[in-house]
Amino acid sequence: MNKINIGLIGYGNVGSGVVKLLQKKRKYIKAKHHVEFVLKTICDRSIKKKKIARGLKNVRLTASIEETIADPDLHVIIELIGGLHPAKDIILQSLKKNKHVVTANKEVIAHFGQLLFEEAHRQGQNIYFESAVMAGVPIIKLLSEGIAGNGYKEIYGIINGTCNYILSAMSQNEWSFEQAVKEAQKRGFAEADPTLDINGMDSTHKLAILTALAFNKFIKPNQIHTEGITQISHHDIEYAESLNLTIKLLAIAKQINGEIEARVHPTFIPKEHPLGSINGVYNAALLSADPLGDVLLSGEGAGQFAAASGVVSDLINLASRQGSDAHQLLSNLYIESPDVKLRKIDEVETRFYLRFKAPDQPGTLAKISGVLGRHGIGINSVTQKAHEERTASVPVIILTDDAKEKDVRKALAEIAKKNIIKAAPVAIRMENL
Amino acid sequence: MNKINIGLIGYGNVGSGVVKLLQKKRKYIKAKHHVEFVLKTICDRSIKKKKIARGLKNVRLTASIEETIADPDLHVIIELIGGLHPAKDIILQSLKKNKHVVTANKEVIAHFGQLLFEEAHRQGQNIYFESAVMAGVPIIKLLSEGIAGNGYKEIYGIINGTCNYILSAMSQNEWSFEQAVKEAQKRGFAEADPTLDINGMDSTHKLAILTALAFNKFIKPNQIHTEGITQISHHDIEYAESLNLTIKLLAIAKQINGEIEARVHPTFIPKEHPLGSINGVYNAALLSADPLGDVLLSGEGAGQFAAASGVVSDLINLASRQGSDAHQLLSNLYIESPDVKLRKIDEVETRFYLRFKAPDQPGTLAKISGVLGRHGIGINSVTQKAHEERTASVPVIILTDDAKEKDVRKALAEIAKKNIIKAAPVAIRMENL
Repeated sequence: MNKINIGLIGYGNVGSGVVKLLQKKRKYIKAKHHVEFVLKTICDRSIKKKKIARGLKNVRLTASIEETIADPDLHVIIELIGGLHPAKDIILQSLKKNKHVVTANKEVIAHFGQLLFEEAHRQGQNIYFESAVMAGVPIIKLLSEGIAGNGYKEIYGIINGTCNYILSAMSQNEWSFEQAVKEAQKRGFAEADPTLDINGMDSTHKLAILTALAFNKFIKPNQIHTEGITQISHHDIEYAESLNLTIKLLAIAKQINGEIEARVHPTFIPKEHPLGSINGVYNAALLSADPLGDVLLSGEGAGQFAAASGVVSDLINLASRQGSDAHQLLSNLYIESPDVKLRKIDEVETRFYLRFKAPDQPGTLAKISGVLGRHGIGINSVTQKAHEERTASVPVIILTDDAKEKDVRKALAEIAKKNIIKAAPVAIRMENL
Repeated sequence: MNKINIGLIGYGNVGSGVVKLLQKKRKYIKAKHHVEFVLKTICDRSIKKKKIARGLKNVRLTASIEETIADPDLHVIIELIGGLHPAKDIILQSLKKNKHVVTANKEVIAHFGQLLFEEAHRQGQNIYFESAVMAGVPIIKLLSEGIAGNGYKEIYGIINGTCNYILSAMSQNEWSFEQAVKEAQKRGFAEADPTLDINGMDSTHKLAILTALAFNKFIKPNQIHTEGITQISHHDIEYAESLNLTIKLLAIAKQINGEIEARVHPTFIPKEHPLGSINGVYNAALLSADPLGDVLLSGEGAGQFAAASGVVSDLINLASRQGSDAHQLLSNLYIESPDVKLRKIDEVETRFYLRFKAPDQPGTLAKISGVLGRHGIGINSVTQKAHEERTASVPVIILTDDAKEKDVRKALAEIAKKNIIKAAPVAIRMENL
């Protein structure tokens, strides 16, 4: 029987879930996978205040990270404290002490993945991080091993449950953005401060990881064009509905002619597309693989046991490779290929949905479309709602043809500058899936 | 650099796809996975008539299976001849000669999986079979490694592309079953003799494999209740549409109170359920995992390169475990757990859609519902279409409450015997997803 000694650093929501799951599934894992996980150490800076799960035997409880990592008996360190520091050092030091690492930390992998994987490679150890994206829904496994031998062309991800819940709730219940955020907080789907979710950065961290795996290129999170969902209003949702479209916060990465483009932003997609039916806190990723074609994976990408499930799955996979060269082979996956370039957002072409708050007076539409035309932006359709009484302003909605990002930005700046409209315009990209 | 010598047995559609893919992706695989696959032997009983891919060097072409398996230089045998015999012996003999096996053969795994995996375990070798279910869409990897540590509660699969194409085409184009079959044949989505697909047996073989992986229980294909799609008519499709439902050939396995139920049959499911939007030749599997929750995987589950992609992925995964104990750990996955029992189809409870061709005369409905009532089958709703002229017969559609299979069968037999109706009734199960 294979025995793996574990040190767990970070005993919060996910950490206590991992401990409970290992206890509950102990017999099952022994019988099915012929491995026994022995939890030797739980390390948490507030260890004295923590309620530790019952039934644990011979587990050392400590607040000392150094002591934990220095223990020569441990084969694996599970890092679950999140954030960049000291997580980065915990991982590096653990690798140097000949330990494998399991982590659910998307931020540290997104920012320091290359450095960490290179160190793992040098040490002959490995880093498992299934729960960093879509929690236990095995998108990491799928990308790196499930469709091995395929190249990738495109990735489309709905990878932030909070945003997807908010957008779904706005659409299904005709709620305002603020109402939907409140409900999400009430149900535990959004933090008290939901900034990192709704500004898109959480999706960006996850996209950086998926991009590294799919295209062997580490893109820094700040190189990924990121827009959140705070500007979405009921006007946009209603308009989407009327065209049988839906708005999703998509994380998109594509490889075109040796260049990678990566971006996170709200996107109009067809409602009947498989991604269009991913609602609420569900996550999904659509991979366009060559030669396999489109593969879609979806499931619940958040929650204590969803994340703990990914960590335990990592442990089992790690155990199944213990004592082999497989770690070397795996960590090679993450070594950067130098000949891949990042495409600047300026050069990205998409169709746009543009919403203007326009004064209800003759000539406004002509002025707007004039500016767009001068910047070479083709107009596909224009909608201005009929109204009974004359009000001060009306929403004007324009769908463009394919247009370069930089042209659209310049045109919108010019429209704003000329005081043609009454508020900053809203621009949402449309993706032909 | 890890070098793996390969012998390929069966050079048909998938076999030649594997060879092309290995050629095309040679550099990519070497760079990314640090392994070189060396195709040493191609064996096919009609080898002399085959057009062999260009650019192959030092490949022995032979019609002799014995010679191929006996070659001590080969590390892996890829079995792609399909069917039970001689595939079973090819796999057994290869294992005994210390070779790993990669196969796309669902039939041989479904029928002889237990025997084959036990032999692999004895020999310290492994059998990879990703392409046996959903071709290269990695459902085998997902089930056995991706969500490791989870137990499974339910599996719902749309795992036969031919049937899904036919049902989708009937629904989208208002075609008859015969029209849809013809179109499927014209497009290469159905064989000249489509029997094994449309009678459900292909799905049954695949379900037997998924069930073994999920529940550690090998169920013989003939123990799985199987119904095909030949009885589905436009009446059923129209009725489904009117209720916002859709009809799919579902492969279902559930674990309830330590018992497994497994069945393949046409099923009414809600149109807006993620499985309801899997159309055409796409395949999908929904796994209900504990504690992870529902996970859906979908993609194109047929075609030369979809299947070849799964075989190549198997080779890469195999290589990444070469020289380790991991094979042992993996093959243990397939050892049967003795305490799981199979639930008889008689005891399975579902709701039913029943369609009767009834003579258009007073009292018919009373007679039908009388018989159902005597067998304890609750009626949820009844539909009988209005008509302008009196015709000889009308379709009567009854939706039941949850009912036991054996009660429904007895009631339908009694209704048929009493000559209440004009043709054999159609019964389609409804699944609450």
